[in-house]
Amino acid sequence: MHVTIENAERAIARAVEKAREIDTFMCIAVVDSGADLKAFRRMDDAWVGSIDIAIKKAKTAVFFGMPTGEIGKLSQPGGSLYGIEHSNGGLITFPGGLPIVDENGVMVGAIGVSGSSVENDHAVALAGAQALGSAELPSHPWRT
Amino acid sequence: MHVTIENAERAIARAVEKAREIDTFMCIAVVDSGADLKAFRRMDDAWVGSIDIAIKKAKTAVFFGMPTGEIGKLSQPGGSLYGIEHSNGGLITFPGGLPIVDENGVMVGAIGVSGSSVENDHAVALAGAQALGSAELPSHPWRT
Amino acid sequence: MHVTIENAERAIARAVEKAREIDTFMCIAVVDSGADLKAFRRMDDAWVGSIDIAIKKAKTAVFFGMPTGEIGKLSQPGGSLYGIEHSNGGLITFPGGLPIVDENGVMVGAIGVSGSSVENDHAVALAGAQALGSAELPSHPWRT
Amino acid sequence: MHVTIENAERAIARAVEKAREIDTFMCIAVVDSGADLKAFRRMDDAWVGSIDIAIKKAKTAVFFGMPTGEIGKLSQPGGSLYGIEHSNGGLITFPGGLPIVDENGVMVGAIGVSGSSVENDHAVALAGAQALGSAELPSHPWRT
Repeated sequence: MHVTIENAERAIARAVEKAREIDTFMCIAVVDSGADLKAFRRMDDAWVGSIDIAIKKAKTAVFFGMPTGEIGKLSQPGGSLYGIEHSNGGLITFPGGLPIVDENGVMVGAIGVSGSSVENDHAVALAGAQALGSAELPSHPWRT
Repeated sequence: MHVTIENAERAIARAVEKAREIDTFMCIAVVDSGADLKAFRRMDDAWVGSIDIAIKKAKTAVFFGMPTGEIGKLSQPGGSLYGIEHSNGGLITFPGGLPIVDENGVMVGAIGVSGSSVENDHAVALAGAQALGSAELPSHPWRT
Repeated sequence: MHVTIENAERAIARAVEKAREIDTFMCIAVVDSGADLKAFRRMDDAWVGSIDIAIKKAKTAVFFGMPTGEIGKLSQPGGSLYGIEHSNGGLITFPGGLPIVDENGVMVGAIGVSGSSVENDHAVALAGAQALGSAELPSHPWRT
Repeated sequence: MHVTIENAERAIARAVEKAREIDTFMCIAVVDSGADLKAFRRMDDAWVGSIDIAIKKAKTAVFFGMPTGEIGKLSQPGGSLYGIEHSNGGLITFPGGLPIVDENGVMVGAIGVSGSSVENDHAVALAGAQALGSAELPSHPWRT
């Protein structure tokens, strides 16, 4: 199941709203459950360097069906997934990427946000994901 | 000068409207005058392979301040720009990418469309560009 | 809808059988409807250079929902899609890649074959696709 | 000496069996002694992000004739191989990739597994390698 464009735009609109509430300037990407880009928006004054990070965060979240920050905990030096960022054309493993899970527990895509602190990036991504359902997957395997 | 996100979304909305009028399913990208992605939308049922093509068409149009199809005429075997597609991480030089020029003759970005015949791609890109001004640049050098 | 691994293996097994009948040594790839690799087999004595070609043919076929050779007709010098091979990390646009369409007309993935003449590559890909349904899509948009 | 396709498929079949025993969903790749892909299988519900990781683990194991986890011990900050992941188009240096060594002590290829914890990935790779011989190389130089 893939997120529709109508829903992807809805998630982005909510994320932008949240970004404004906390006075930030974000890049926001939504990918479908195949990790292919569905929609993207760069707010005025957002960092140009955040374009690629937002897209990679969204892809990373759908690649492994988990928040990017969870992967980052495991990819630290000495961690079990050290260096995983070298796969899949480059991952981003700090917070700001979240799966989008619909009301049936199906991962329909993911949202990635970049442009501020990782706490803010995460908060904006969460707002976007929750506009469509939640960011929490049932235990693997989920349906896609 | 860069296209604002409000205007980028306006161009995409008009392009989507045009795409529906001619019964097509498009990927539509808008980049700013620095060739950096500003907004993107993939209509439901659009080809997955068109994501990258739409973005590359928009970048190509702004890279050289001209319609992608014009570059394609020069990049044919024996042509003066033969092989230019190998530059800049990959160009797309057939129609569907157009500069976006505001009412002051300033190139503020470009739009790239992929998902149907090149004639349709061009028509949808043109509708999007014209929502903000035109796709025709004054003679080079233009202001960006 | 994505091809299952059981069906992907069935398509490859039939393709290998066909490859043997016509005395060839093939690389055979199956991707799902998101263009992500599902299964791959390189027959003994197949060209090493065919690994990447088989995978790219399968991806190309699913990217645009059509036989790779159809795209190749349009991407010749002077053609409307000249240079499209520069997109999506590199396309292969000569014959040997075919969509896999199930009995409901849904594109569930694609098969790519490389290792012999393009006629033989196509014949082997067709045998594989037909093991699961057909290689012929209803008119766009199909369901995925 | 290269692993035959018959043997590569046998290793993958055993690895899949092991993956099921421990209730996981894996991507499994086998490369030959030249690090070129021989066979690949993605079980249904395996992470899409694991495709590239499984292939890179197999390549990494054959590139240096050792388990990927052994390289990872040396590539930590301050370690003698720090940053080696940047070579060869991207290495994966955590566990899950193992050489495949035949009964004569010849490295005929490698197997890479991704889709669960590194402990599970390793266990599944080991089952696959042992279906053909062992994962333990005689001291370097080994024969290939």
